[in-house]
Amino acid sequence: MAVVEPCCPQYHAAIEFLGKRWTGAIVRVLMHHGGGPLRFSEIAQAVPQLSDRLLSERMKELEARGVVVRAELPGRPPRVEYSLTPMGRELEPALEQLEAWARRWLPACGDGPSR
Amino acid sequence: MAVVEPCCPQYHAAIEFLGKRWTGAIVRVLMHHGGGPLRFSEIAQAVPQLSDRLLSERMKELEARGVVVRAELPGRPPRVEYSLTPMGRELEPALEQLEAWARRWLPACGDGPSR
Repeated sequence: MAVVEPCCPQYHAAIEFLGKRWTGAIVRVLMHHGGGPLRFSEIAQAVPQLSDRLLSERMKELEARGVVVRAELPGRPPRVEYSLTPMGRELEPALEQLEAWARRWLPACGDGPSR
Repeated sequence: MAVVEPCCPQYHAAIEFLGKRWTGAIVRVLMHHGGGPLRFSEIAQAVPQLSDRLLSERMKELEARGVVVRAELPGRPPRVEYSLTPMGRELEPALEQLEAWARRWLPACGDGPSR
């Protein structure tokens, strides 16, 4: 049996982080809008099946990983905006390629994400 | 509020399919070995924390999506080999870019995939 090279652990962590339900969609929405800033409600509008509770959880995870930065703007009511960090922006070539692949190979009107 | 463009549903399906636990790792192992063919036991060896039961399930899902093709070779015992299809091989630029990003931005000795 051939010796088979193990999978890169950083790549493995990255694909499963981005593939967690809604995470990849949220990053792509920010990317399509110049990396942000976008308001919570704007992101929610672009991913309509996602509940506010879950969106809030995902934004916290993205912030904790360093992919997204959150800014609170003064005012009444206070406004919260999210932007991609340089780390988040550098995902663009990978996600661009993945979107091109998906548009080529996956049916346009499928059943949505396969989960 | 700005009108925010929704996320591409094919991309959304793709990132969540590939981000499903172990799926992205399995595809990458095949890719790193010329797209296959690799035997079940060779894939299992490259992703050591993955049980045979779960590997078998993932291979069936990859086959059903058209990313992987399975070949049974005659002999005793019969041998099963897996290869990437043209659709699977075309994931290479996206996953290559993602791996480059992950090696740059994620810690080398992390806690493994974030699940």
